Amino acid sequence: MNELKIFVPATIANVSCGFDVLGLALDTVGDEMTIRKVSEKGIKITKILGQDLPLETHKNVAGVAALALLTKANCDFGFEIEINKCIKPGSGIGSSAASSAGAVWAMNELLGKPFTITDLVKFAMEGERLASGVAHADNVAPALFGGFTLVRSYEPLDILSIHTPKELYATVIHPQIEIKTSDARNILKATVPLKDAIKQWGNLGGLISGLYTEDYDLIGRSLEDYIIEPIRSILIPAFESVKQEAKNAGALGCGISGSGPSIFALSKGKKTALSVANAMKLVYNKVGIDYDIHVSKVNTKGIKILDSK
Amino acid sequence: MNELKIFVPATIANVSCGFDVLGLALDTVGDEMTIRKVSEKGIKITKILGQDLPLETHKNVAGVAALALLTKANCDFGFEIEINKCIKPGSGIGSSAASSAGAVWAMNELLGKPFTITDLVKFAMEGERLASGVAHADNVAPALFGGFTLVRSYEPLDILSIHTPKELYATVIHPQIEIKTSDARNILKATVPLKDAIKQWGNLGGLISGLYTEDYDLIGRSLEDYIIEPIRSILIPAFESVKQEAKNAGALGCGISGSGPSIFALSKGKKTALSVANAMKLVYNKVGIDYDIHVSKVNTKGIKILDSK
Repeated sequence: MNELKIFVPATIANVSCGFDVLGLALDTVGDEMTIRKVSEKGIKITKILGQDLPLETHKNVAGVAALALLTKANCDFGFEIEINKCIKPGSGIGSSAASSAGAVWAMNELLGKPFTITDLVKFAMEGERLASGVAHADNVAPALFGGFTLVRSYEPLDILSIHTPKELYATVIHPQIEIKTSDARNILKATVPLKDAIKQWGNLGGLISGLYTEDYDLIGRSLEDYIIEPIRSILIPAFESVKQEAKNAGALGCGISGSGPSIFALSKGKKTALSVANAMKLVYNKVGIDYDIHVSKVNTKGIKILDSK
Repeated sequence: MNELKIFVPATIANVSCGFDVLGLALDTVGDEMTIRKVSEKGIKITKILGQDLPLETHKNVAGVAALALLTKANCDFGFEIEINKCIKPGSGIGSSAASSAGAVWAMNELLGKPFTITDLVKFAMEGERLASGVAHADNVAPALFGGFTLVRSYEPLDILSIHTPKELYATVIHPQIEIKTSDARNILKATVPLKDAIKQWGNLGGLISGLYTEDYDLIGRSLEDYIIEPIRSILIPAFESVKQEAKNAGALGCGISGSGPSIFALSKGKKTALSVANAMKLVYNKVGIDYDIHVSKVNTKGIKILDSK
């Protein structure tokens, strides 16, 4: 096998109560990438469709992640990477994570799987470091593992795959405004009230329990964010209206996807997720903000192989 | 049925990473209580063995919890309560919670179960309010539900029963020093660093996941407290040595039980839990501090009926 064409899922980080630790993968929203072994050593980005992103290896998140793997792989050949970028950079659904995760996942496959999935997360995190200045794992982990993931610890890196109920669907609306991840980080406070932190970890515990027991009501009750959302949501136009209308339409819960500006909702079943999409659209239609919207099952398998040669 | 003799378990609140939300019940450490229906209305504490505690209903935590239930029960008879107090007050393993939980649980049984278990938690919390000034639920919940419990939310009260692995044992050492719950609360800071809070909810998520998947190593890795233990442990003599020796002896993890001064460790299997007990004892023998020590399976059934008439 010398070439792999893959689908790499978009991801939702934080998921309301799990700031910096929790993430989930979408099933039908993501990038397509082709990675091939070539005789020339090193990493070459040969083509990027869909977005205007740098082809220089050192300036591209996929390139940087791929180089991080290559320095550990000790191989006498190289790789070419083509990216069909369907996830918009800056959308808050793991655009840089998808490129980084896809590159290293496919390379590992083509090399005969010398690396563990945790190794791959570490390589992909180097792409995240280039994208945002912070080598976070809460998007690359679900992109690589699929389903829900929990980054229990960074030192040492300890990533858990969390049971994902089968009827869980995500609706994501992406208002066409720009929020830089660095700005979204800088707005946060360095300390938080203990009483709010207690509520937050109560909800995270509730959400994890709800996922294992497939208790959709509990999942919904737990999707509350007392720490980050009250601050970051002021950067997102009509956030409260979108959230309220999503819940009125039957969403289990609704919050900021990653550092925004996308807003996600989780629902039980596709029908509800589609109704939630309509309700969210109506809000932005009314205020006159352009948007993209996605409805997807929560993925349980991570990256998918579309073709191999 | 007019009389019930019951065993009410001691409990460990917080469990390292779950301050104010998590708790577990012990299986063989606890109080015995006898509750009987009597023609005279109201609540009467007729006997307390083992400890010097007030018999006046309004000054006794079991009495106050029982009265909270009685005001909602609308019955034309009353109850007598006898308590054989094996859990020392101030030990940090839910002494007041056991008395409060046992009283209301048995009364509900004798009344034909008109109340839900969440109602019983609310009544028992009134006993906790008398004991410590705060109507917390992290001890009464595991006493009533058994196993591990999570107080996801107080408003509204939402308590979850968490799957409890069968080979989990607790070792608890109670150094004979006094720490008032109010003092243990006052020493805490009102705000916490966000970076520590993130580590804490990462660990709580990991612990809940480890309980559902019966992954003992994960349970152990998750039993770290970045928020409370660094502050409260200074009130407990030789805490760090006890913790280190417990881990050296094979404990999965070790921390402060409730607001202390008891120190708990969790282990896989009884044999390890007994080795851990020996290791903990040696530390206090060396520094010359008296102690009680308990080894118990983690209970999965809550309160047990010993006899009924």
